[in-house]
Amino acid sequence: MELDLSPYSVRTDLALEAKEIASNRMGDTIPGVHTETSEDDGDMIVTRMDIASEEGARAIGKLPGHYVTIEVPRLREKDSDLQDRVATRLAQEFASFLQRIGIGKDARVLIIGLGNYNVTPDALGPLVVENVMVTRHYFELMPEQVSPGYRPVSAVAPGVLGTTGIETSEIVQGIVEKSRPDLVIAIDALASRALERVNTTIQIADTGIHPGSGVGNKRKGLTKEFLHVPVIAIGVPTVVYASTIVNSTMDMMLNHFKNQTSNTNQIFGMLESMEENERLQLVKEVLDPVGHNLLVTPKDIDQFIEDMANIIASGLNAALHEAIDQDNVGAYTH
Amino acid sequence: MELDLSPYSVRTDLALEAKEIASNRMGDTIPGVHTETSEDDGDMIVTRMDIASEEGARAIGKLPGHYVTIEVPRLREKDSDLQDRVATRLAQEFASFLQRIGIGKDARVLIIGLGNYNVTPDALGPLVVENVMVTRHYFELMPEQVSPGYRPVSAVAPGVLGTTGIETSEIVQGIVEKSRPDLVIAIDALASRALERVNTTIQIADTGIHPGSGVGNKRKGLTKEFLHVPVIAIGVPTVVYASTIVNSTMDMMLNHFKNQTSNTNQIFGMLESMEENERLQLVKEVLDPVGHNLLVTPKDIDQFIEDMANIIASGLNAALHEAIDQDNVGAYTH
Amino acid sequence: MELDLSPYSVRTDLALEAKEIASNRMGDTIPGVHTETSEDDGDMIVTRMDIASEEGARAIGKLPGHYVTIEVPRLREKDSDLQDRVATRLAQEFASFLQRIGIGKDARVLIIGLGNYNVTPDALGPLVVENVMVTRHYFELMPEQVSPGYRPVSAVAPGVLGTTGIETSEIVQGIVEKSRPDLVIAIDALASRALERVNTTIQIADTGIHPGSGVGNKRKGLTKEFLHVPVIAIGVPTVVYASTIVNSTMDMMLNHFKNQTSNTNQIFGMLESMEENERLQLVKEVLDPVGHNLLVTPKDIDQFIEDMANIIASGLNAALHEAIDQDNVGAYTH
Amino acid sequence: MELDLSPYSVRTDLALEAKEIASNRMGDTIPGVHTETSEDDGDMIVTRMDIASEEGARAIGKLPGHYVTIEVPRLREKDSDLQDRVATRLAQEFASFLQRIGIGKDARVLIIGLGNYNVTPDALGPLVVENVMVTRHYFELMPEQVSPGYRPVSAVAPGVLGTTGIETSEIVQGIVEKSRPDLVIAIDALASRALERVNTTIQIADTGIHPGSGVGNKRKGLTKEFLHVPVIAIGVPTVVYASTIVNSTMDMMLNHFKNQTSNTNQIFGMLESMEENERLQLVKEVLDPVGHNLLVTPKDIDQFIEDMANIIASGLNAALHEAIDQDNVGAYTH
Repeated sequence: MELDLSPYSVRTDLALEAKEIASNRMGDTIPGVHTETSEDDGDMIVTRMDIASEEGARAIGKLPGHYVTIEVPRLREKDSDLQDRVATRLAQEFASFLQRIGIGKDARVLIIGLGNYNVTPDALGPLVVENVMVTRHYFELMPEQVSPGYRPVSAVAPGVLGTTGIETSEIVQGIVEKSRPDLVIAIDALASRALERVNTTIQIADTGIHPGSGVGNKRKGLTKEFLHVPVIAIGVPTVVYASTIVNSTMDMMLNHFKNQTSNTNQIFGMLESMEENERLQLVKEVLDPVGHNLLVTPKDIDQFIEDMANIIASGLNAALHEAIDQDNVGAYTH
Repeated sequence: MELDLSPYSVRTDLALEAKEIASNRMGDTIPGVHTETSEDDGDMIVTRMDIASEEGARAIGKLPGHYVTIEVPRLREKDSDLQDRVATRLAQEFASFLQRIGIGKDARVLIIGLGNYNVTPDALGPLVVENVMVTRHYFELMPEQVSPGYRPVSAVAPGVLGTTGIETSEIVQGIVEKSRPDLVIAIDALASRALERVNTTIQIADTGIHPGSGVGNKRKGLTKEFLHVPVIAIGVPTVVYASTIVNSTMDMMLNHFKNQTSNTNQIFGMLESMEENERLQLVKEVLDPVGHNLLVTPKDIDQFIEDMANIIASGLNAALHEAIDQDNVGAYTH
Repeated sequence: MELDLSPYSVRTDLALEAKEIASNRMGDTIPGVHTETSEDDGDMIVTRMDIASEEGARAIGKLPGHYVTIEVPRLREKDSDLQDRVATRLAQEFASFLQRIGIGKDARVLIIGLGNYNVTPDALGPLVVENVMVTRHYFELMPEQVSPGYRPVSAVAPGVLGTTGIETSEIVQGIVEKSRPDLVIAIDALASRALERVNTTIQIADTGIHPGSGVGNKRKGLTKEFLHVPVIAIGVPTVVYASTIVNSTMDMMLNHFKNQTSNTNQIFGMLESMEENERLQLVKEVLDPVGHNLLVTPKDIDQFIEDMANIIASGLNAALHEAIDQDNVGAYTH
Repeated sequence: MELDLSPYSVRTDLALEAKEIASNRMGDTIPGVHTETSEDDGDMIVTRMDIASEEGARAIGKLPGHYVTIEVPRLREKDSDLQDRVATRLAQEFASFLQRIGIGKDARVLIIGLGNYNVTPDALGPLVVENVMVTRHYFELMPEQVSPGYRPVSAVAPGVLGTTGIETSEIVQGIVEKSRPDLVIAIDALASRALERVNTTIQIADTGIHPGSGVGNKRKGLTKEFLHVPVIAIGVPTVVYASTIVNSTMDMMLNHFKNQTSNTNQIFGMLESMEENERLQLVKEVLDPVGHNLLVTPKDIDQFIEDMANIIASGLNAALHEAIDQDNVGAYTH
């Protein structure tokens, strides 16, 4: 795990990718980890992963729990019909999470939009909060006027440590203690190790938010242990860390030379012998002086992020309120 | 007090104006209320008001406490030299508040920016939070590296009830309990009853934020009783309520007719006999269907608000950190 | 007309209201002005007005041309199904404008979003530009890859005089001369004289934008004469001028007294004799020192504006591109 | 030049870096290129470069002209005193550009803020436009009221091709033809090849904006040839392209192996023989599928960009208006 947390190693917030990395090392079967994949019209690949044992969790470097990943390679093509289908699928998958952890249809929900509104690839959470339907105050102020089929939903974008000076998890803990939701949903922009997953993938997990995950600095997590209510996390990779790009380059180069010189034991040995610490040292040299906080992000990130925020807000509205038709989820955001 | 809280009566968040209204009724001396005014270069009028008794508080309709009002009629002229002088004066006045209530130079401060970032005349608080210097995390994460002359300052814009679904005061209470500041500073956009005070006046008060004051809906206040730490409020009137405009029109018309017909007892009687409730009924008719939530605001409000946010952020930076030169307060915001 | 343009008289940018005012003076039939109203499910009232003669234009104070007004009293209730139906209706009405003035399905369109992005009630135009589908560059850069059923659409938010220093109409003229569209669509936030029409009404007109109309300062208009291409204007009232509120108050008061004293000739005469210039003088006194630039706007304007921008962007997308299904217009904005 | 424009090669918009690259190939002296460096208090390094011949221009890959680069390694440390000194220095350097190309103190200036307001590292230009002092409309509308010491300045953020559908240079050309400035100043976010120059360097050039430079897509430049008025460009590197990171990694690795195996002719040869096209192929593989549009940017880019925009706006205000004291440049922005 230490190596995985090193700022200069390949970093991913997706359980799917963490398992891929572990499988390269350990083979396809990892004890305590069960994966199941289905395809949907050729447009969406949905992977369900259970990390059921501590051993599996250690092997992969992710917390034990249930993860669902929706991959939609064509999602950057701005096909609004596809976007609606993804929101609908998200609503269904999310609803099954609610059922799984026993969240009833009247349970109170607090949506937390993590991230920095002013940094485009980190703005996903605040944008979802801006777009999602908020109803809790109606239940508090005029309960008799609320139509059936809705539940109390509140939503807060707590800001980031660098602009508030307070750990985000402490702000959230304070809000949870005062507003007493039965469930927290945390939305966050993530880092992937694969450029093709950036802005095309949605991960839902019942593990909450790990310390150190996401685009911003989260030194404490948002978990059931910390907040005393269940936490479902929804994340979308919007960046790749620059260190990942550097690592990929090295892999590529090592392979390139290996292929060229496969009959030359001497060189082969030399390449093999490039130790992990030499390698990290090289990555560090490339990325100094600005270090591991460098984000790699597409130039037109603003539109991807807005589209994603709408998909997630639509999906959540439909999953959270019975009165909202799950077949027409797009209609309830602005 | 009931009439003052009626949505269709003249509404002001400025103690200065509340006293003017009371003085019209009761004469200049109001028991338990002391006022002192000074001028500064002909550009600034600074009024200090103490509401020392419950009787005075009831008469004026404001909480007992200490209020300072800085009026700068030329502040809308975009004179940046004047803006700097106002920030400097604000820093001095604010520093004397800190002293008054015994807040030492190392005391921890939490700045709360009330209001809705997305509604221009209500965005003052969030804009101050965006511009003010935040230092608390340095004290938490690397205390040994903080230069002398600074104190821990955090800043949060908690949003508004309509977008979060949670009472703002409850969010703030939660954050206060977790981050444990020694003082809360609450910034808010206010309503004035006089158009000429809009965007030209700053009020500081050690009473906190009253329930129902400010541009947004605040059903619970931010007060020492509620938060268990002292609260200093800084407010700037950015709007006049439409009901105020309507009331002013009525006064004007009644006066107009009185002047024309001063020798006609019959008409005079008729005008006098327009009872408060008839009057409120008229106001209600004019403003229906949208009611008392209508704001009157200048067209170029965006620039006034940004300038004001900078003045307040600069003034606070200088007042809160000894290391910041109070003679050059402008330099420390962005 | 001079009185109508006076800053302190009642001001409206809606032809519908201008005709109501004229009808009060002249009776229901105004020569050269034809009006036709239909209702739609009880939710929408659609009024078609033709101002066919110069005489009619003078009487009403609006340019000769064709105006369609869609009034949706329930539009502020955040019913997303209703919003979709309004977008669909807008698309249909707009399409019939295109046909009327002979704009073919391949004609090139430039959408101009007038107004100030940073002043909430004036941000409608820039928000539509942000949300509308832009395609012109695909036709220019890779015409062979554009699917059938689309046309070249470009969109610019040119800013306002106060922040650019240049007349908006001159900026637009320059862009039109370089990008050579066949049609300009100008989106603008308008002033109404009736609070209930604010954020519930959409006006389409083939007259372009009049000088002096809209929320911002437009000293030159956007018209066919000036731009040499047809201009269709889409406007939504987002404010009422404070002077309108004041005038309504006066009407209300005059009526109030008249009703009370209908048998007293003397008083009746006095009220009648309140001359227009006395009246304007009173309005002026109420609104000084900030004058006729005061906007009256609901406190939660931000959400209405965003919803409206989405409705208009959706409607335009469907009306402009054959490939977009007019029955599902909501799907194509973000 | 072709190689330099290849999307997968190292890309820089800084003349300073282009010269460094050329010097690596050709030695320190490049015909027709003169460079002069001075230091300022140890905080700023100012480099003046003249590209005086076509030969020099070809060697470096930048247009002939005069370039000034201000490097301030400590500029990311949020030292507001340093920021003020940089603004002052920028004002002085810029003023000498005005003199050089014969722009008098009454000449009319149009500031163009290039880039996408909604993508943080590309928002520099629009932010400068938002902060700079605009005066042209006062000269047009009430010339007699303008104080002496000011000149007519206008400012426009024309948007980007992807959101307007129109080449930015064509929009600017249209605005120039209508508003008739004597000088255009174009502000743009740039790409550097060195992470340490990101957000610490300002380049001024009298060559205008090259096609293809800057963070956005600029297929036509903003040059004197195209606009028929002189164009001074101010640019700040806010990103490094991902392809640059990949290339640096390769250099590092090749050096690493060379050092390890310097006595092994065979391997040495192999490394040397890695041809440019093989190399580009590798870069392409690493960065696919998202390609050369990937930006590398620090996580806290939002604050750097705002600070830079203020520095540039302050510097321009002081350089453009005699009435603004060049020793207190900070005071005139908001």
